Order: sequence, then C-alpha cells, then structure tokens
Amino acid sequence: MNIARLGPAGSEIPVLQRDGVSYDLSSLTSDVDGAFLGSGGVDRARAALEAGELPELADASELRVGAPIARPGKVVCIGLNYRDHAAESGAAVPEEPVVFMKDPSTVVGAFDDVLIPRASTKTDWEVELAVVIGSTARYLSSPDDALGCVAGYAVSNDVSEREFQLERGGQWDKGKSCETFNPLGPVLVTADEIADPQALGLRLSVNGVQRQDGSTANMIFPVAHIVWYLSQFMVLHPGDLVNTGTPAGVALGIAGTPYLRDGDVVELEIDGLGAARQRMVQA
Amino acid sequence: MNIARLGPAGSEIPVLQRDGVSYDLSSLTSDVDGAFLGSGGVDRARAALEAGELPELADASELRVGAPIARPGKVVCIGLNYRDHAAESGAAVPEEPVVFMKDPSTVVGAFDDVLIPRASTKTDWEVELAVVIGSTARYLSSPDDALGCVAGYAVSNDVSEREFQLERGGQWDKGKSCETFNPLGPVLVTADEIADPQALGLRLSVNGVQRQDGSTANMIFPVAHIVWYLSQFMVLHPGDLVNTGTPAGVALGIAGTPYLRDGDVVELEIDGLGAARQRMVQA
Repeated sequence: MNIARLGPAGSEIPVLQRDGVSYDLSSLTSDVDGAFLGSGGVDRARAALEAGELPELADASELRVGAPIARPGKVVCIGLNYRDHAAESGAAVPEEPVVFMKDPSTVVGAFDDVLIPRASTKTDWEVELAVVIGSTARYLSSPDDALGCVAGYAVSNDVSEREFQLERGGQWDKGKSCETFNPLGPVLVTADEIADPQALGLRLSVNGVQRQDGSTANMIFPVAHIVWYLSQFMVLHPGDLVNTGTPAGVALGIAGTPYLRDGDVVELEIDGLGAARQRMVQA
Repeated sequence: MNIARLGPAGSEIPVLQRDGVSYDLSSLTSDVDGAFLGSGGVDRARAALEAGELPELADASELRVGAPIARPGKVVCIGLNYRDHAAESGAAVPEEPVVFMKDPSTVVGAFDDVLIPRASTKTDWEVELAVVIGSTARYLSSPDDALGCVAGYAVSNDVSEREFQLERGGQWDKGKSCETFNPLGPVLVTADEIADPQALGLRLSVNGVQRQDGSTANMIFPVAHIVWYLSQFMVLHPGDLVNTGTPAGVALGIAGTPYLRDGDVVELEIDGLGAARQRMVQA
C-alpha cells in the first residue's frame, strides 16, 4: 500500500493509493504524521479502504506531490554505508554506523525544486533508501526487533554541500541542512510491501546521465542493524526519518567533480518505491 | 517577560509570568510553539496581560516545570565556542562556528531527571545560553539583523556522552541525542528583557561543587554572529532552538574526568534566566 500527501506545500491532503487510484484519508487523519503512524493509522486506512469507506480523490494526478510524511521529528542519516561510496569519498569503511542529522525542515516533495545555496559551488546528490519509523524504538534488544518498528520506505535524496560539509569546521550537519535538501517520495510504501529492504536497486541520473546504480544489498549496515543501533543512542519516534546512506557515484567521487548547477535535473528511483525528479534552482 | 509551560509532560499549560505571578495563556494559544512565537504571540500575550484578560493560574507553584517551548523543529548547537572549553577539550579554537545538531525530542523540563544512557561511562554536562528563534532567519545580510529574529533566551544543559560523541565514528550527534539530553528552562525570557546577551554569567555545579563559571562575554562567536552565520546554511524557523556553546569546566576537561553517575545532581543558572536542577538516573 502506498501513502502519499498531495496538494500545495503546507496543506497537503493525506492519501492512500492502490492500483493507480488515490483515496482521500482526510476522514481518518489530518496528516501522515507520527501520531497517525504510531497509532495504527496505516491499519485503519487499509480497513477503511477495504470497507469502501474512503472517497476517491478527484483530479489527484493534477496535484503537487508533497513529501509522503509530515515534517519528521528528526532526520537521522547514516554516512559511508556503502563500501564503494566510502572509497570514492576517500574515507575508511566505518567500523560502526556513522550518524549525523539533517534539519527536518529540509524535507520537500519528490518533484519540488532543490535550491542551490548561495555561495555554494559543491552541491551534490545522494540517492538513498529512506526508512520511516512507525513505532518507538528505544534500546531494542536485537536487530531482529528492528523491522517491526518500520512503517515503510521511500526514495530520498540526501542533498549535500561538500564544502559546507567537509571544509567548514569538522561536523557534517552544516552541509546537509540547507533549504530543500531532503526531497522525499513520491510515496511511502508500507513495510509489508517490501519483502526484503536489502534487495532494492537504487539509481540516480543527472541531466539524463546515469551517475549512481547500486543495490541495498551492498549496505555495510543493513536497515535492521541501523534501527537497532540507533535505538541504543537515541529514541526513534513514529514519523522520524532515517536516510540509510548512498552508493558510489556522487559528484564528489567523479573525475571533474560535476557538482550541481542551476537548471540541472536529477532523477532518482528505487525498485518498488517509485521515481522522483528535481530541478536545481539557484537560491 | 517570562514564558513558561507548566504541567505534566505532554500536556503543559502555556503560561506568562510577571512579578512572581503565573497567568494562563490557554485562551491565546494551545502551546508555546513556532506558530505562536512566529505570529506575534508574545506581543499578544503582553497586550492581554495589560488588558487584564489573562486569568491567574491557580497552584502554579505545585505544577511540574516543562520546557518553556514545545518540541523545537530543530536543535542546532555551536561547538567549542569558548576558548577555555576548546582548550580543555584538546581542540583548536575554531575559525568559524562548528555546527552540530541534537534530536529535538531530547528537550525536557529544567527539573526533570536526566537519563544516563545504558552502556554510558562518559555522560557530561554543559551549561549553555539557549536562543529561541522568533522569526524566520534565511540568508540574513548581516549580524545586525540577527537579534531581531530572537524570541528569547533560556538556560540549557547540552548533555553529552563523550565516548559516543568522540570515540564512536567521527560525527558528534550520536553523543548529543540521547533521551532527555537537553533540559531547557525553567523559563523563556523574552529578548526585550536581555539588554546584552553577551554579558551574562553562567554557572554549573555537580553535587554542590562548582564546575563551570563563565560569561557569555567570552564567546568566540556572539549570538548575533551565530544566528547570522547559521542563516547562510539553513533556514531558522520560529520555535527552533540554538545552543550557543559551553565555557570550560566540563568533566572531559577536569583531572580525573568526573563523569556523571546515577544519583548525581546538576544545578545550573544564567544571570537573568533563572536556575535549573537535574538529577541523574540510570536509563
């Protein structure tokens, strides 16, 4: 089952999608947020759909596609989680997950413009499998308990400004939290639809040139490990977002470092999670 | 004017305090959040008080003191912003602000217990001047424009687990985002009450032994610079929280590194912003 949010930024309508049809969830919830996800909202939506209680959303295809979840309580990111990306970044393969954060207000829709920050010369792309938390994860006993805390998955672009990230003071968050730097979606695919989150191809192209072509099979730390691991250091709450790292092929690692420029178009997709497309616009 | 939130965690009552009396703001707003702060809520509260329209909150002194703002959209922190703390940490004085983030769900009340994480042996304290954003700061032209974006100030404890922060993978956020790691308050003092945010003494003691005794006069980057600087890298929204760094005297820098243990009591205060007290409890 796919969850989406359609409509103008700030007033998106919560939607359930099945077989290409969009159903309006407004009678069940005001938004796809932590309260909805953490209280069995997905199950209620499924039941309402099966009972024929959800009205079809008219003209859904003409509406803007918002991020499929409301602004998360936090956005946690895993760095260097694919060996080939660690290598192209000149970084060692980490012995345990590298954790950093993005400003949650960077989350935008899958087809929204991405703003190249003023003074930026090194804006870069990163296709990533995003995990949306569905129930509280706190000191989980084992990775075996982790996937039960996942509401679903989505396509994420962990946009990064490499100078801000790496050359301006030691901590990465400064280059990860610029306005619009986390396009998400188009949809949240509920966890029951993804038989194995470690068997998903993920691809990204810039202006039609393929740049990333990886598989979540090559993650150093798989999703279950990440969620378990994070739960030892912080509490993951329903509606929180976890970006699980990017495979090789970012501008930082390509000869000539072809960083993003005004007008460039980034297209990204993950098997089973849909495709996204963002145009770069100078801030 | 002081803003507070009183009552059980999760259902605090928004309050305005003057001359030791607490007035109930519930008729004006459901919470002290970004929507309230960003829409002139403080001015409305002041006007309502002066018009005699705010009822006194009965038994205010018996209520729990919550964090004075609702969960922030983000918590941005400045690292190594006092020369003496950089020195005791063995770090160079930064050439520009070091920026990292905390999970916003770590914000708790000024007298709430702080949980020592499981497996932690290096839980540390940091008294800090906290800045609460009152209006959007995005690419501010100059530090001169920055203080106009500040709603007010509060006492913050940027609790830190030094092993998680410094010895577990390179980025600091992992040691900054543990459950309950950001006690805030007791109150938000509105910016008009603080003539000079760079002239505030800040002190912290553990079990009655004074450990930190600094002044915001010794910040490397003052508040106006920080807010202006951050606005070049991210958008600061009303209700966001900025921790501006800690002076010397943390456990990391003291002979014998007397990290916090179950039962320890931390007391902290900043001139004009009140005093807080937290007991350490093993998670």
